[in-house]
Amino acid sequence: MEAIFVYTTFPDWESARKVVRKLLERKLIVCANLREHEAMYWWEGKIEEGREVGAILKTEVSRWKELREAIKELHPYEVPVIARIDLDKLNREYSEWMARVLFG
Amino acid sequence: MEAIFVYTTFPDWESARKVVRKLLERKLIVCANLREHEAMYWWEGKIEEGREVGAILKTEVSRWKELREAIKELHPYEVPVIARIDLDKLNREYSEWMARVLFG
Amino acid sequence: MEAIFVYTTFPDWESARKVVRKLLERKLIVCANLREHEAMYWWEGKIEEGREVGAILKTEVSRWKELREAIKELHPYEVPVIARIDLDKLNREYSEWMARVLFG
Repeated sequence: MEAIFVYTTFPDWESARKVVRKLLERKLIVCANLREHEAMYWWEGKIEEGREVGAILKTEVSRWKELREAIKELHPYEVPVIARIDLDKLNREYSEWMARVLFG
Repeated sequence: MEAIFVYTTFPDWESARKVVRKLLERKLIVCANLREHEAMYWWEGKIEEGREVGAILKTEVSRWKELREAIKELHPYEVPVIARIDLDKLNREYSEWMARVLFG
Repeated sequence: MEAIFVYTTFPDWESARKVVRKLLERKLIVCANLREHEAMYWWEGKIEEGREVGAILKTEVSRWKELREAIKELHPYEVPVIARIDLDKLNREYSEWMARVLFG
């Protein structure tokens, strides 16, 4: 079990919940933590601002490619961010629980 | 000094503040950043949703095992997530401040 | 393109937005995600609490040193945290968009 966090952002709660639910149903992730933020970014030559919903997705590294493709397929953005951070350590209890959900 | 972030989640503010305060008192961490999120996850064969409080805990790698065990001991969840991310770089001023708090 | 996330925290929204805007204008970052949290931490021998605004800054590793120095120069804190996490993977579309913003 090599656990990863994948960070992505959505334009609103509705799209965030809808996409995350599908990722859960397909067993591509075991859990997601969603919270609002204010985004400031370059877009077409200007600095833009707006509310978004960011999500930390928790899963196992073997799900990465399928997860990345599913997010691209389901995501309302033209260019979503899909950033993977490999965990350096994870407590055994949670790791075993993840394995049961994903592979059990 | 090898700094790490440890991410865990609590069912509510009361338990989050109580556990984090104990981790600070024991000098297992120097700082915590807590904010609410919505969690969506598999539990006993169903997709569940609920509010949680997520915490980023900042500390040094030598504290990891003791911190992980302390979280397990103090945490209200049966299976908390205790995820460690090793920082790739940290500014020297903050690193030195961490060392003074933890080892000073 | 080796993408990185840099995490820092500000005392309030005003300083967070002001500093982040300057980092964007200087093309040191392509995007920032800002949200409030409660901080609990050691300071001068006591455990303190307070509201802060945390920011995830998205950029490329070649910008790191200049970004770190710019944050130190612009930041209202005596000892800000400037923590770098190197992404293990990032989707190609976002990576290419980052390169266009940063390197034209």
